[in-house]
Amino acid sequence: MFEVAELGHKINKKEYNQQVPELRTALLDIQEELKEADFPVIVLVSGMDGAGKGATVNLLNEWLDPRYVRTFAFGDRSDEELERPNYWRFWRSLPPKGRIGLYVGSWYSDPIAQRAANKSSDADLDRQLLRIKVFERAMVDDGALIIKFWLHLSQKSQAERLKKLGGDPKTAWMVTKLDKKHLKNYAHFRAIAERTLRGTSTGPAPWMIVEGTDAYYRGLTVGQHIRDRIRQRLNGAADRKKGKAEAAIQPVPIKKLTVLQHLDLSQKLDKKDYQTKLETYQSKIHYLGRMAKEKKISSVIVLEGLDAGGKGGLIRRIIPALDARNYQVIPIAAPSDEERAHHYLWRFWRHIPRAGQVTIYDRSWYGRVLVERVEGFATPEEWMRAYAEINDFEEQLTNHGTLLLKFWVHIDQDEQLRRFKEREKISFKKYKITAEDYRNRERWDDYEQAVNDMVERTSTEYAPWIMIEGNDKKFARIKAMRHYCQRLEQALG
Amino acid sequence: MFEVAELGHKINKKEYNQQVPELRTALLDIQEELKEADFPVIVLVSGMDGAGKGATVNLLNEWLDPRYVRTFAFGDRSDEELERPNYWRFWRSLPPKGRIGLYVGSWYSDPIAQRAANKSSDADLDRQLLRIKVFERAMVDDGALIIKFWLHLSQKSQAERLKKLGGDPKTAWMVTKLDKKHLKNYAHFRAIAERTLRGTSTGPAPWMIVEGTDAYYRGLTVGQHIRDRIRQRLNGAADRKKGKAEAAIQPVPIKKLTVLQHLDLSQKLDKKDYQTKLETYQSKIHYLGRMAKEKKISSVIVLEGLDAGGKGGLIRRIIPALDARNYQVIPIAAPSDEERAHHYLWRFWRHIPRAGQVTIYDRSWYGRVLVERVEGFATPEEWMRAYAEINDFEEQLTNHGTLLLKFWVHIDQDEQLRRFKEREKISFKKYKITAEDYRNRERWDDYEQAVNDMVERTSTEYAPWIMIEGNDKKFARIKAMRHYCQRLEQALG
Repeated sequence: MFEVAELGHKINKKEYNQQVPELRTALLDIQEELKEADFPVIVLVSGMDGAGKGATVNLLNEWLDPRYVRTFAFGDRSDEELERPNYWRFWRSLPPKGRIGLYVGSWYSDPIAQRAANKSSDADLDRQLLRIKVFERAMVDDGALIIKFWLHLSQKSQAERLKKLGGDPKTAWMVTKLDKKHLKNYAHFRAIAERTLRGTSTGPAPWMIVEGTDAYYRGLTVGQHIRDRIRQRLNGAADRKKGKAEAAIQPVPIKKLTVLQHLDLSQKLDKKDYQTKLETYQSKIHYLGRMAKEKKISSVIVLEGLDAGGKGGLIRRIIPALDARNYQVIPIAAPSDEERAHHYLWRFWRHIPRAGQVTIYDRSWYGRVLVERVEGFATPEEWMRAYAEINDFEEQLTNHGTLLLKFWVHIDQDEQLRRFKEREKISFKKYKITAEDYRNRERWDDYEQAVNDMVERTSTEYAPWIMIEGNDKKFARIKAMRHYCQRLEQALG
Repeated sequence: MFEVAELGHKINKKEYNQQVPELRTALLDIQEELKEADFPVIVLVSGMDGAGKGATVNLLNEWLDPRYVRTFAFGDRSDEELERPNYWRFWRSLPPKGRIGLYVGSWYSDPIAQRAANKSSDADLDRQLLRIKVFERAMVDDGALIIKFWLHLSQKSQAERLKKLGGDPKTAWMVTKLDKKHLKNYAHFRAIAERTLRGTSTGPAPWMIVEGTDAYYRGLTVGQHIRDRIRQRLNGAADRKKGKAEAAIQPVPIKKLTVLQHLDLSQKLDKKDYQTKLETYQSKIHYLGRMAKEKKISSVIVLEGLDAGGKGGLIRRIIPALDARNYQVIPIAAPSDEERAHHYLWRFWRHIPRAGQVTIYDRSWYGRVLVERVEGFATPEEWMRAYAEINDFEEQLTNHGTLLLKFWVHIDQDEQLRRFKEREKISFKKYKITAEDYRNRERWDDYEQAVNDMVERTSTEYAPWIMIEGNDKKFARIKAMRHYCQRLEQALG
């Protein structure tokens, strides 16, 4: 989920200074228009310690017309507040129509802090998140626009920041004991953050994760996103008056690094090394697979990737290590009539393996947010809500004890073209290449954006995406098999 | 919540036999049309033991064309099912588009049974209900029509049924040990049922509570409701194709008894008796109020009722017993500009009392589902979702420890007219009567339906409605004060 926010997004000072004046004007214009609108705007700025929550809110206050914004930073409850139900203070603070409420501390603060301090359990947290959903739902149903930012910092960035602050006597006081403790508990906190975001990233009130390391990037991204979301809504409200249904909230594409650009596709294995490792991992999978069968641990392996990425070859290397009675490979093509008459997840639920069995999906439910999104087979409403549906589905699988491995096998454009040409020369592979395959290449950028969003929204603690650099098939196969072995070993204890 | 389903709804055999042929034809026609539609229908028949779940499903199978219906009764999970996530079996069973799935046992059975046997806690149940909501939401988002029946039986009816069955040697075998145990735990089970229905009665998949005692009434009501909901949806789908937004699901009004008809408005108190009791209860409230102040227990008293019902007089009798520093009376008229610019609940949250204080709302948030519904100030979407919002709000209040008392003060039409005339004669009360008051009388039936729905949906375990027979003001005042004393005593332990 946070992968995309650890790629090192940066904007230099020059570009920042170029863009800010325009952004400020746009924000002020929008506020002017908003004053007459019939909805309030609720902006939450949450995130990791040191990811720049305070700085961001200060910046926004500088950019916006302060007469029509109120900033709230909820800390401990006052006497007055303690004597009423917890949400009393939040209800009181809500901005009226036409105004913006800016929240640094919010209804998220306490539940997260309590869980982080182990004063509550995951179940408690879930209950509080449910309350939050009900609360936000009521606001949204009433017309409110909710914009939620999560400022993220990788563990490395957080450590560097504390070191830098602590090293300078002028700033050393800023490093609190709590900061140090949080750094120590980084993994714990990150898992809580993920759980929180996953549980509350609803269709109408989604989270926007922003990398917090670079102040220029962070400020500009937040400001632009606020601008675009309010603008979209103001336009939507006009549409609504005309009786048209409002468009689903689409993630506003801000030019950013994608996880795919970050892959080092030059990674290789030489043939000899490959042969040795292939044999090792095949026998390892064979052995571990038998143990898993005995212990009734099932596996679901999902293979996704661009055309000619090498998914088929990978499957053919894993299969020899498995017992034919224990696995099935499900190739996902266009749905059957019967499948089409059901919810799109129905066809995948069908093939969930029994205890100790393995199901390999060659393409999967992710088609909904990849090809169906890019080609327009699914409406924005449909693929937008699919992220949450998929997360829920996978959580049920993994809660049941099923091992779930999700591989994205990636190649670059040149390599794909080379493979297409090569296939056309080999008779038995020729049928695999059609004019459509070439057409799909024109949508490369769209697919890249779709993959990026998919990883951001569905790479979870319990089912992370494993990105496989696939330009070298040998490297790709070994990396995937190694991961499968590791996960099996982990599960077998 | 179950008040309305304990009024003794009945249909005689003759009327039943008259209506059934028409209903059957209508159901078959609808099924024919449904075959070509692009949505499945999921019908759940749940409820109390002995409320006629099995009989109802058998009846529906008789009425419907069995080729396009499948009935499911999920019991214990099979080996096959145990080896997959719990919802696997439900996913597999889902009807395709154009078909009806009829569920006797369903995703609700296990969570309710486990909680009833105290094998799980309220928190566990809530978590399972959340999963159900996510599941049903996914179905609804995909287009499914979900119709959920809860067949209810009062404790008395359940006891009578067991006695009858047990007394006849031909049916005695039908009375299981579990039945007897459930009867003993009736209150426990009823509370669980309420919690379940409250937690899962969502806008798009609401529960329909049906009194189960009389087989004719039960069967006809269920059949007609299915007919109307599918018909509504088929028409809605046609609208949707034309780009119109589908209408919110409105409860289909089936001619039925209302809680108001059930009140005995002839109840009276003579003057002397009244005077004595008034003094007793005033001093009791005074004493208990002081204790509550000390123990920091706050009260919220809600007064609702028709015009000239006597709410004002009741308030004036309670107030002398309270310390002026400890209470406030909030008369709810048209909202202020500022209030109008917020969510409708905002103006009520504002006045939540501090610890130990009392707030009396003369009319309240229930305006949303009463006057705003009847007069069309709120859209059906708005007042339909208000039930859940109100339940959530009140749950927060009572969870915080606040005493919440909700009184509906009722008078009949004749008494109201008499009071209107009387007020016109008294100069200082004259201003209270306007032409509008007379106009409102024309909507009497609409108000009665609205009150009935309000009680059905918002009379909860933690905040039940207290119905006050108000034709005799003296009787009404004493009954209300007695209830307040009881609740205060209860809270003080």
